[in-house]
Amino acid sequence: MQAGVKPRIGMIGTGAIGGFYGVMLARAGFDVHFLLRSEFNAVAEGGLQVDSAVHGALALNPVQAYRSAAEMPPCDWLLVGAKTTSNAELAPVIRQAAAPGAKVLLLQNGLDVEEALRPLLPDSLHLLGGLCLICVHRAGPGVITHQALGAVNIGYHIGPCGDQAERMLIVEEAATLFRHAGIDAQAMADLQQARWQKLVWNVPYNGLSVLLGASTTPLMADAASRELIQALMREVVQGAQACGHHIAPGYADYLFAMTEKMPDYWPSMHHDHLHKRALELEAIYARPLAAAKAAGCALPKIEALYQALAFMDRHNR
Amino acid sequence: MQAGVKPRIGMIGTGAIGGFYGVMLARAGFDVHFLLRSEFNAVAEGGLQVDSAVHGALALNPVQAYRSAAEMPPCDWLLVGAKTTSNAELAPVIRQAAAPGAKVLLLQNGLDVEEALRPLLPDSLHLLGGLCLICVHRAGPGVITHQALGAVNIGYHIGPCGDQAERMLIVEEAATLFRHAGIDAQAMADLQQARWQKLVWNVPYNGLSVLLGASTTPLMADAASRELIQALMREVVQGAQACGHHIAPGYADYLFAMTEKMPDYWPSMHHDHLHKRALELEAIYARPLAAAKAAGCALPKIEALYQALAFMDRHNR
Repeated sequence: MQAGVKPRIGMIGTGAIGGFYGVMLARAGFDVHFLLRSEFNAVAEGGLQVDSAVHGALALNPVQAYRSAAEMPPCDWLLVGAKTTSNAELAPVIRQAAAPGAKVLLLQNGLDVEEALRPLLPDSLHLLGGLCLICVHRAGPGVITHQALGAVNIGYHIGPCGDQAERMLIVEEAATLFRHAGIDAQAMADLQQARWQKLVWNVPYNGLSVLLGASTTPLMADAASRELIQALMREVVQGAQACGHHIAPGYADYLFAMTEKMPDYWPSMHHDHLHKRALELEAIYARPLAAAKAAGCALPKIEALYQALAFMDRHNR
Repeated sequence: MQAGVKPRIGMIGTGAIGGFYGVMLARAGFDVHFLLRSEFNAVAEGGLQVDSAVHGALALNPVQAYRSAAEMPPCDWLLVGAKTTSNAELAPVIRQAAAPGAKVLLLQNGLDVEEALRPLLPDSLHLLGGLCLICVHRAGPGVITHQALGAVNIGYHIGPCGDQAERMLIVEEAATLFRHAGIDAQAMADLQQARWQKLVWNVPYNGLSVLLGASTTPLMADAASRELIQALMREVVQGAQACGHHIAPGYADYLFAMTEKMPDYWPSMHHDHLHKRALELEAIYARPLAAAKAAGCALPKIEALYQALAFMDRHNR
């Protein structure tokens, strides 16, 4: 970040994630511009509202809201809160809204979510990934409920930075943006490692919320689902290790214990299923399974869960 | 079977299985007595009706129907069509209805279903198990729809027969009863082997009908569920082999292809779930998993399926 000059931030996709972090950044004094689709009218008129159990009731009104990227000013940072299922379609949007040399940060779960986008972006753009450990959901048009947590782990994917030191400067710059907004952020040396680490949570809870129609509290209260969650977590750790990414011993136990202390939470995949939207099965299940398999590692329970979810997803739409 | 003398048969539990085989046996001239609970009045008044795609519309009226085993005459054969979940409670019922030296045939799926019952029965009673490969369901009180198939594989569990030759005579006697009624029946040398063999079908289809809320036709039409079914079948075969039971190569493929040709079918576990009855998870999942584990064989996909079903079952009642 240039001293004294706050970068202009564009939020691509203003759902629960984009809305929460966008409002937090705007309230910290950043010049944040929001791209919206179905909720444009509601937000242009009524602003954005975050009901946060951590930060209180936050309102942003007026909002710099746009219907199309062509109307947005050139942004130094583009934060992408849209679903991974639409990444390839986002390339023209990002190209339109990006200032020269802009940094693009995908706030998305799953593995290899940058791959679809990278070849469609100019080489001069930096591409980063951010993993959000947060309990947040849309309560209505322009209204976001933030239940707990909020930390972001950020890593560099690929772009004009040649060496690791230069990359880490960009990653630290991203982490600093969030910290200025009162959000815990961590610069990660290895984005793939960060993505695998986040999968330890997403693989069990996202899928089981759909498969069993259950939020975290009942899932954590039943002996059978607890065993299944822990077995799925162990498989993610095995997959990560087979792919050369070290997950700290005890990390799965930490996430498990954290979930036990969380307020009752419905993961985003449940909301997608409920609203008959495509589930993020590629990023969260298919690609980790394929990567582990290529490394000679079978993940049978994750595979069974993926197959069951694929069936449900196809019959839901 | 003594020449010229048809044995008296008692049917314990007159649901879809008990009703179908009981009507078939009664219409073949056997003296069949039916124990009923909630459907006693309907059947005592209106008889039993089997709408069979194979045998046509069959009616049995009047029916020798009983509210309690104490009223039944002593039976030479007792066929048990009740759920495995109530086996321990069946012992007094069986003792009351059994003639001296009677043969008890459990028409039930799953592993070790005889174990709960055997210590509660007199040593003089023979205990056998029968695996029914049949598409049949209750359409209403006393009304049974038979969609397809019907063969029964029968084996000897334990009882007064000392040697294998003597046991096989009893098993052949049971098979002959069914054949007299126009039903394909097979005497199996090893009941445990027959039970594992039947699990190759029950483990995938029973569980997935509940987990995915889907009958056989949609399950067989989707690439992901087909793969999952085949993977679950492979694990059952592995479990059987680890426990020393040989499943013929190609047997799983045969069942898979057979299911593809069957009319659309909802397995019994789906009906149990729908009516908020206990699922037969012990017999069909927990015991096979435990047996395989004791033999050093992990069955991870079956275990994941079992854990998911255990969660659903507990939240359904």
